[in-house]
Amino acid sequence: MKTLITSRSKSVTIDSEGPVTMIGEKINPTGRKRLAAALTEGDLDYVIDLAVRQVDDGADIVDINVGVPGLDEVKAMRDVVAAVSDAVDVPLCLDSPSHESVAAGLDACQARPLINSVRGEEASMKEILPLVKEYDASVIALLLDEEGIPETAEARVAVARKIIERADSMGIPIEKIVIDPLVLTVGSDSNAGRITLDTIELLTAEYGININLGASNVSFGLPDRHTLNQAFLGLAIGAGASCLITDVAKMAPTIHAADLLRGRDQHGTRYIKYFRAHAPKDD
Amino acid sequence: MKTLITSRSKSVTIDSEGPVTMIGEKINPTGRKRLAAALTEGDLDYVIDLAVRQVDDGADIVDINVGVPGLDEVKAMRDVVAAVSDAVDVPLCLDSPSHESVAAGLDACQARPLINSVRGEEASMKEILPLVKEYDASVIALLLDEEGIPETAEARVAVARKIIERADSMGIPIEKIVIDPLVLTVGSDSNAGRITLDTIELLTAEYGININLGASNVSFGLPDRHTLNQAFLGLAIGAGASCLITDVAKMAPTIHAADLLRGRDQHGTRYIKYFRAHAPKDD
Repeated sequence: MKTLITSRSKSVTIDSEGPVTMIGEKINPTGRKRLAAALTEGDLDYVIDLAVRQVDDGADIVDINVGVPGLDEVKAMRDVVAAVSDAVDVPLCLDSPSHESVAAGLDACQARPLINSVRGEEASMKEILPLVKEYDASVIALLLDEEGIPETAEARVAVARKIIERADSMGIPIEKIVIDPLVLTVGSDSNAGRITLDTIELLTAEYGININLGASNVSFGLPDRHTLNQAFLGLAIGAGASCLITDVAKMAPTIHAADLLRGRDQHGTRYIKYFRAHAPKDD
Repeated sequence: MKTLITSRSKSVTIDSEGPVTMIGEKINPTGRKRLAAALTEGDLDYVIDLAVRQVDDGADIVDINVGVPGLDEVKAMRDVVAAVSDAVDVPLCLDSPSHESVAAGLDACQARPLINSVRGEEASMKEILPLVKEYDASVIALLLDEEGIPETAEARVAVARKIIERADSMGIPIEKIVIDPLVLTVGSDSNAGRITLDTIELLTAEYGININLGASNVSFGLPDRHTLNQAFLGLAIGAGASCLITDVAKMAPTIHAADLLRGRDQHGTRYIKYFRAHAPKDD
């Protein structure tokens, strides 16, 4: 399945049959004090620099989350989206639970970005899906609803089905939806990874739909997180994940390796090109 | 499926529904000059030390390959198997294309080891399968035959089918066979990984059989081999590989991570235990 995401000058296709699409996660002030301060002070240069560096590192899409407590998020989203759209040519992912903020980002970017996200809750579907329709955008669907995050793969698939069917009834085709099956840390429930992998496999078999994952949560609270995150990427990509919201500088080598190893990188062109551009220089 | 491998004092089960079994690969003189010299000189202490270190690093089984050009391999296999059997309690994997050498190892180990390997060639099946039967051993089946390594997953499965059926006709049950689908480097054919992964998936779906892989070949000739090997482990384990012949010290963290992430390590006990035993010490 192909999900087309555009900026004013460029398009990216999230493709369940292609290489993995990488969304740079760093423009998100949660746990990033320097960014929170920059957003509060309106220091757009700092935010633009974060966007440029992620694109240099290989991000296909850049996530924009401006959620700082006390900040006028609608204004901040509008300003940041406009500034980042001028600075980099890749499409954006508008990351906010607020439909007002998402709408401001949609107005500012003048393209068909990815909205992050709709949930299986009535209120969320009612607010976000009309924006997807109106702006011909695409949307990440998080598999949780009024009851929270379902504990079984089958119950998560049921939430996906609800969102897909609601969208369909509004004239939004399935390829506009990218499912995020969610992953909790195996540090508190050692079945957490298995549930997410099963959800990906069930959705891939039933719908062939694009799957996004923010895979680093899986290792929270455990030692040697990078090894866990790398191993999970291999498992999740093998199961059917086609899009990752991630620290691109850190995870791109593993993602490019996985693409090459499963035959999504003819002649290893992308792998070699990435390695040449980013390997430590000898000179 | 469960494949029981024993030493005189211990048994290991390769289990397609359990955690991955790790076979230590280091007692193999190919490309290891110091080991080749030790084998030629009959320096068993050096070989024993290699076995002990691999078991300390987490090897469930230790591979024994004594193939040095000009060496009396039958005698060397007998001596090394006897010495290693006295020094470590884990089961062995008798690694030789020669049935005389395998027979000598079977006599010396007084247990039900894993034979590495039988091929789909008539001569190999005729020589090796009777030993599997006589000693109630298990065997790794390499998916190649008189024509070489098949280029498609379907053709590799056909070789597996031939070996499984031949073994069955001799009264050797399928659980005594561990299939090695083989992997070539993606450095010369960027579909090489995909073919191996497809072979694993087809065999898992049809037979539920145990799958062994020597996964490091996949990255030969490419930069950043460790990242490629790690990513391939994730993909291969996700596809159904249940046994890996590998550099245990280097790959155990990724393998334990994959087991935890796919729900094969309740409460993360093995992962945490391994990390505590092998993490760099602060003191």
